[in-house]
Amino acid sequence: MSGVPTLEELRHEVALLHRELTRYGLVSWTAGNVSARVPGEDLMVIKPSGVSYDELSAESIVVCDLHGALVEGDLRPSSDTAAHAYVYRHLPEVGGVAHTHSPYATAWAARGEPIPCVLTMIADEFGGDIPVGPFALIGDDSIGQGIVETLRGSRSPAVLMRNHGPFTVGPDARAAVKAAVLLEDVARTVHFAHQLGTPDTIDKQHVDHLYARYQNVYGQ
Amino acid sequence: MSGVPTLEELRHEVALLHRELTRYGLVSWTAGNVSARVPGEDLMVIKPSGVSYDELSAESIVVCDLHGALVEGDLRPSSDTAAHAYVYRHLPEVGGVAHTHSPYATAWAARGEPIPCVLTMIADEFGGDIPVGPFALIGDDSIGQGIVETLRGSRSPAVLMRNHGPFTVGPDARAAVKAAVLLEDVARTVHFAHQLGTPDTIDKQHVDHLYARYQNVYGQ
Amino acid sequence: MSGVPTLEELRHEVALLHRELTRYGLVSWTAGNVSARVPGEDLMVIKPSGVSYDELSAESIVVCDLHGALVEGDLRPSSDTAAHAYVYRHLPEVGGVAHTHSPYATAWAARGEPIPCVLTMIADEFGGDIPVGPFALIGDDSIGQGIVETLRGSRSPAVLMRNHGPFTVGPDARAAVKAAVLLEDVARTVHFAHQLGTPDTIDKQHVDHLYARYQNVYGQ
Amino acid sequence: MSGVPTLEELRHEVALLHRELTRYGLVSWTAGNVSARVPGEDLMVIKPSGVSYDELSAESIVVCDLHGALVEGDLRPSSDTAAHAYVYRHLPEVGGVAHTHSPYATAWAARGEPIPCVLTMIADEFGGDIPVGPFALIGDDSIGQGIVETLRGSRSPAVLMRNHGPFTVGPDARAAVKAAVLLEDVARTVHFAHQLGTPDTIDKQHVDHLYARYQNVYGQ
Repeated sequence: MSGVPTLEELRHEVALLHRELTRYGLVSWTAGNVSARVPGEDLMVIKPSGVSYDELSAESIVVCDLHGALVEGDLRPSSDTAAHAYVYRHLPEVGGVAHTHSPYATAWAARGEPIPCVLTMIADEFGGDIPVGPFALIGDDSIGQGIVETLRGSRSPAVLMRNHGPFTVGPDARAAVKAAVLLEDVARTVHFAHQLGTPDTIDKQHVDHLYARYQNVYGQ
Repeated sequence: MSGVPTLEELRHEVALLHRELTRYGLVSWTAGNVSARVPGEDLMVIKPSGVSYDELSAESIVVCDLHGALVEGDLRPSSDTAAHAYVYRHLPEVGGVAHTHSPYATAWAARGEPIPCVLTMIADEFGGDIPVGPFALIGDDSIGQGIVETLRGSRSPAVLMRNHGPFTVGPDARAAVKAAVLLEDVARTVHFAHQLGTPDTIDKQHVDHLYARYQNVYGQ
Repeated sequence: MSGVPTLEELRHEVALLHRELTRYGLVSWTAGNVSARVPGEDLMVIKPSGVSYDELSAESIVVCDLHGALVEGDLRPSSDTAAHAYVYRHLPEVGGVAHTHSPYATAWAARGEPIPCVLTMIADEFGGDIPVGPFALIGDDSIGQGIVETLRGSRSPAVLMRNHGPFTVGPDARAAVKAAVLLEDVARTVHFAHQLGTPDTIDKQHVDHLYARYQNVYGQ
Repeated sequence: MSGVPTLEELRHEVALLHRELTRYGLVSWTAGNVSARVPGEDLMVIKPSGVSYDELSAESIVVCDLHGALVEGDLRPSSDTAAHAYVYRHLPEVGGVAHTHSPYATAWAARGEPIPCVLTMIADEFGGDIPVGPFALIGDDSIGQGIVETLRGSRSPAVLMRNHGPFTVGPDARAAVKAAVLLEDVARTVHFAHQLGTPDTIDKQHVDHLYARYQNVYGQ
């Protein structure tokens, strides 16, 4: 998409992006969700609650305000809507949020252990260790607060919420989903590395160099 | 399906639900089976024995009474039919049963170790630790008895039968299959978490809160 | 297939059975192979060497005699042909052979460690522990001898050849492939079980009971 | 392809070969890349930077000189182009290069640990232990130098670049991709073997025998 997407384009894009969650095995059954901020408006689009990935279409994606109230759509919004909305209210640079229970990332979250920056891919995309957020109950602002507090002090677009799973953010929904995919990739590789020894860490100055290059030079 | 399904609809639904077992890698070759109680009758529908998942259709799903005797269909019922039938006879609230040898859940079963409630997804769907059932030989009521005795004292819709594999139940076959899918998901994540340390447990009051919310608020 | 298959039916069947190797992730690139004895003749059909699984058709399956010499077909037979041929010469009850480097089974083979009978599925299909065969170089009868010597004293249709990978046998090619699929399934589950503890073993008398039942009662 | 491929055939072949990276789960999102030397010219074809595997076509594959400068194509070349170019300049026998972050191979790379030759498949394809290359920053000749220095003293077509991931080479792009696929296969199996014990090593003379046979006898 070039330029500012319409609401219809955004619903279509967000519906399609959910396919990346199933393609990479980040979600089971109906768990997981992606949202996008509607540019220039106090609105977001998000997955409906408990709907099968096979049945997800642009039409089923719902529109909510930034307090999570349904504005348009026939279905109830995701049960994680309050957390997405809180992130959009408090982090104005964020245009997309993704949430999964991807298995390796969630295992790090269950132990409350940050993923150490031992791979160039972690330096590239996350700019350092991938941080852990607090345990929080679903249903009020606790999860959103935990995400925002953890990500504010970090270059990482990903936070590992304790006993729960990862949330990722980005300038748009595609970037948030990309972060979710790369997070699980590195969570898995570092898990494997730790199973048989201790990987070397990468010097801070090299991490900075890699992060700066990837953010500015990679891609088209 | 809304309202009470016909026998034909139920066979179709159960045939389709078996695809979720292969989609999520819960079964190999012809192992694994799903059944549904026929509402209002002392009958169940179940997978035939040793039939390939590629060849499973609504027509090949057989109808049995609740002692496992074939009532309708050209094929022999699943070799686990006696266990399913026992569950329907003794747990009237159960409308569907699924059985797999999904690898991570079966590994917990092989060690005879319950899966501890260290993830919000476990609290949501299973309401606490996922319990272990006894070792039982196939062919008589032993497996059914082990399932019923274990699930009666638990909020969990899943039991890990020792040295064998999981059985899951639900108000209908779809719910039983959902429990089988989420069971393998959490069995795997908790396995990963334990490989590199010890995950935090979730306080009992938080488990209760999460379980109550998920059972009542999630979905459409 | 009912009755005695023609040579053409056998080539078709063996071509199709190779798809199960890729479906279950038992092989990479062109590694792995399946063969079938031609009933009533001193012939076998087998995969050609180094041919992509995407390009495998009934026409590309070659016919060899039971010393591995090409009898019919345009391509060179599998580099494991001598081992298959040796098995057919020395085990007259075997009608099919499969060979893979499936990852979990091969890991047990690399350690030279039998897979212990700790799952009902192992008792059902393999009738006890799954045995290890000797290290053998490819190209002469060494591999075939190792397979035959190991399987003669065992109910198992599978042998884990040291530092190499599994060979499985059966009354026909389908049964050999089934054994390859179930072998990897149980190799993986027992691997997982051992990673976090020690699984319970199953009493010999229960193993015998399960094996007898599965061999005689399961399926259509 | 028989004979010398045209530039158009080479772009088509390289576009198709990228599908093997996704098929075997060697790459996530847009990471990973394959290139081929243009026979008889100081040119190479390579994946463009940050382009989705779904959208990769012969047309999108770009042509560069052997210092990495774009010669033909509408997109920017892969951010790893300098490394591929360095390999082609310094190893004239190399006609194809592949780079992935495949998880098990990258885990060995993160620990800086060579993969020991404990499987016949490793002897066949890699001729011994699979070596580790130095840590190197992206963007100049460091990665290329590390690859060339490591592979010059080895029969292995694969090098595990520290904290980064594998690079593989071959006489053409197909051979380089094959090495990437088999590398991940053996990295995974040896990982599994080490998790529960120590695999037997294979005698040097047997490794030599297996390597010589596979390089000369296998395939059509």
